[in-house]
Amino acid sequence: MAQTGLAARFRDSITANAFKSYLAEFISTFFYVLSVVGSAMSSRKMLPDASSEPSSLVVVAICNAFALASVIYISTNISGGHVNPAVTFGKAIGGHITVPRAIFYWISQMLASVMASILMKSTTAGQAVPTFKIAQEMTGFGASMLEGVMTFVLVYAVYAAGDPRQGKQSSIGPIMVGFVAGAGVLATGPFSGGSMNPACSFGSALVAGTFRNQAVYWIGPLIGAAIAGLVYDNVTFPPIGMTAEFVSTV
Amino acid sequence: MAQTGLAARFRDSITANAFKSYLAEFISTFFYVLSVVGSAMSSRKMLPDASSEPSSLVVVAICNAFALASVIYISTNISGGHVNPAVTFGKAIGGHITVPRAIFYWISQMLASVMASILMKSTTAGQAVPTFKIAQEMTGFGASMLEGVMTFVLVYAVYAAGDPRQGKQSSIGPIMVGFVAGAGVLATGPFSGGSMNPACSFGSALVAGTFRNQAVYWIGPLIGAAIAGLVYDNVTFPPIGMTAEFVSTV
Amino acid sequence: MAQTGLAARFRDSITANAFKSYLAEFISTFFYVLSVVGSAMSSRKMLPDASSEPSSLVVVAICNAFALASVIYISTNISGGHVNPAVTFGKAIGGHITVPRAIFYWISQMLASVMASILMKSTTAGQAVPTFKIAQEMTGFGASMLEGVMTFVLVYAVYAAGDPRQGKQSSIGPIMVGFVAGAGVLATGPFSGGSMNPACSFGSALVAGTFRNQAVYWIGPLIGAAIAGLVYDNVTFPPIGMTAEFVSTV
Amino acid sequence: MAQTGLAARFRDSITANAFKSYLAEFISTFFYVLSVVGSAMSSRKMLPDASSEPSSLVVVAICNAFALASVIYISTNISGGHVNPAVTFGKAIGGHITVPRAIFYWISQMLASVMASILMKSTTAGQAVPTFKIAQEMTGFGASMLEGVMTFVLVYAVYAAGDPRQGKQSSIGPIMVGFVAGAGVLATGPFSGGSMNPACSFGSALVAGTFRNQAVYWIGPLIGAAIAGLVYDNVTFPPIGMTAEFVSTV
Repeated sequence: MAQTGLAARFRDSITANAFKSYLAEFISTFFYVLSVVGSAMSSRKMLPDASSEPSSLVVVAICNAFALASVIYISTNISGGHVNPAVTFGKAIGGHITVPRAIFYWISQMLASVMASILMKSTTAGQAVPTFKIAQEMTGFGASMLEGVMTFVLVYAVYAAGDPRQGKQSSIGPIMVGFVAGAGVLATGPFSGGSMNPACSFGSALVAGTFRNQAVYWIGPLIGAAIAGLVYDNVTFPPIGMTAEFVSTV
Repeated sequence: MAQTGLAARFRDSITANAFKSYLAEFISTFFYVLSVVGSAMSSRKMLPDASSEPSSLVVVAICNAFALASVIYISTNISGGHVNPAVTFGKAIGGHITVPRAIFYWISQMLASVMASILMKSTTAGQAVPTFKIAQEMTGFGASMLEGVMTFVLVYAVYAAGDPRQGKQSSIGPIMVGFVAGAGVLATGPFSGGSMNPACSFGSALVAGTFRNQAVYWIGPLIGAAIAGLVYDNVTFPPIGMTAEFVSTV
Repeated sequence: MAQTGLAARFRDSITANAFKSYLAEFISTFFYVLSVVGSAMSSRKMLPDASSEPSSLVVVAICNAFALASVIYISTNISGGHVNPAVTFGKAIGGHITVPRAIFYWISQMLASVMASILMKSTTAGQAVPTFKIAQEMTGFGASMLEGVMTFVLVYAVYAAGDPRQGKQSSIGPIMVGFVAGAGVLATGPFSGGSMNPACSFGSALVAGTFRNQAVYWIGPLIGAAIAGLVYDNVTFPPIGMTAEFVSTV
Repeated sequence: MAQTGLAARFRDSITANAFKSYLAEFISTFFYVLSVVGSAMSSRKMLPDASSEPSSLVVVAICNAFALASVIYISTNISGGHVNPAVTFGKAIGGHITVPRAIFYWISQMLASVMASILMKSTTAGQAVPTFKIAQEMTGFGASMLEGVMTFVLVYAVYAAGDPRQGKQSSIGPIMVGFVAGAGVLATGPFSGGSMNPACSFGSALVAGTFRNQAVYWIGPLIGAAIAGLVYDNVTFPPIGMTAEFVSTV
């Protein structure tokens, strides 16, 4: 921690503890993407025209909420429970994770997402892997803005969940982040797709073989995540010292 | 705190900390209304005749519960996590927030609700913003009473969630308030609309351009909220000193 | 507490604190029954033939789980959060509540259930209040056994939730009891009705004007509740002193 | 504990405390299987062609999540809350439970599952007991792999939930394990059946009278459970002493 050069930060990203955190991100993202992609496939398997039946949205949204809460739970004490490149990006912008480590997190997350999508495709014997889509009448800009706003709240909740100043409420942090994701899917699913997670969008798109609108799931969420971290750290919950100064000048 | 005049209370409402709480209310109410309005639009997008399909009620109710729990979670340690003019009203009646601050809370909440409704309307390219409606055969009085009873429990739960005397249970407070809202939507949605939140009703009505039955969503909830605060503070959970006195005279 | 005669126990049941607990039971049972009855009416309002649509079962089950968890949460530190005559019966059998107090609890619960059913019927302008029914091909004995087994687990969970020896898990107790109720509705709803709460069955039946099969919802649940309390207190979680003795003789 | 021979371990498995843990496993597994089997029967009772309706998947998944969370909650402080032969297997592989005790756990779990299936069949007057099925186009190998991956996460979450090093998050452990099960059902239900619990598959199959594909629900889950325990204990969360050593050599 005393070393601050790039080389030192890189060396710090290849220690045993760092590898444990990459593994934790891999396991959690793998199960998360497996669940999200799997639930979308499940509702289509039951009802081919699933997109006209609100109960299929319930299937995907609850699966997303349950899966995200539980995978954050099992990884939070090793890797911080990002499970999402947007979260990692927001944490890197805020200086809570070094850039070399963030890059390895991204690699773990992307790899896990691709492998989970492959597993779902191969075990179900050729069932199509669904990708995140935006409604026909919407613009990519509008969809990306919706995804970005939802990701803002998701990352803001991740910050709150990991902040010891939140007191005893911290214990329910993983549930709360899962609930944000579930609400996001229910509110935006039929419009912007309800991804809020670039890794999830990327993995399913790669295996499905189409990158149509992929940028929608990266630009908005990364911007939303960065703003969330900056607002949390600098405005609503600045470090103790900062608050004191800030208040005294007013 | 030593000053008690109106001017002092007003000055207290424009400090940096006060502004942080208004921002927290804004962020939380924005996401909450975006989720509630968005989920109603989602189920209609999937199935135009969504009001005849119980699964569309599940979509809205779960979204409401998940969103409310999580937005209370992220704001409770700054603003108290009201996210609802009725809650702010109940807290003001009970003397837990000064009137000037309460007014700024209301402004933040209303502004957030309107902007969230505008965002949903604009990004979805002209999809109609749904408003809260009461069943044809019901009277406005009956609907407002149902909304009021539900809001009573919601505000009572908010009081319980913020009371340190509730012990270790406090940690699940935000989830419990979200569950009350979810149950309320499931029980009253097709009858009185299941709003329990005047800001949410107002914002969607303004953007949709109709204020039909708007009074239903203000009168009942505000009365219910005020009674909830009074019952909690004076009857079921009076301050320690009061309890002692009360008991000793019996 | 030093006095143990019947008169003393009766006097103890009419103190100010006792009345607070009856009020807490009333408020909680009122909202719980309002939610359960309301959600069943909601799904019928949306889809008259709701009993052939699994999503209507989801509506009722989630509403039950959310409502029960939250009403236990708001009453547990005053009245113990029974909200159910079967729970009160189980607690009385186990000696955790005096008989006079238990009788007043029952009165509060029954009154609340009847009034909640009346409120739903009157505000919705004559919509029929649904009652708990057993499937045509089932016997009353079979239905009561199913209800009894489910109530056993419900009361067992209430005991666990209120036991300080359960450690930090206690904080999620109300959620767990709500989850038992939700699972019970999903598993037995179309068969035995999924009540697990005699007050709820009684209130809706009284207002609907039919007591067909009412015994089903009393006999099984009361027996299940009594056994749950006895098993918890004497076998699985005996008081510390008892455990020590028990173990030493083996 | 000082004795380490087989005889000593066997004697340890027939103490009063051991019997209490078998009883706790029995009660919890009984209610869990009753809920899982019952919810599948419920949705079929409502809609004979339930497998083409996503809301029936929601019924089973939420019931599974709610039931598993609550039965773990009520048994965790006696038996560790396994409720699943795969969990017991994983714990035995990791040395957290002796082999004789693990065998009695399995017997309790299997017996409970069979009896719960019999109760559902008999009380519902001959309604068929549903069994876990794999999609027609899938291979047994693919299905078992899906079940195994899901069971891996389930057991990994059980390990995390029972680890005091997880800090205050431990309090929500039972909810998290329930959420994994719920997500697993939503993601894999129409493909591999979404069992993740060999006892549940065995009991329903025995009472239904068909053991078709039974091996699918044993091989994958037992392997997944064993790997989960080994990864948790040796890689991601090794005992403190081990971590120190491991880190120092890197």
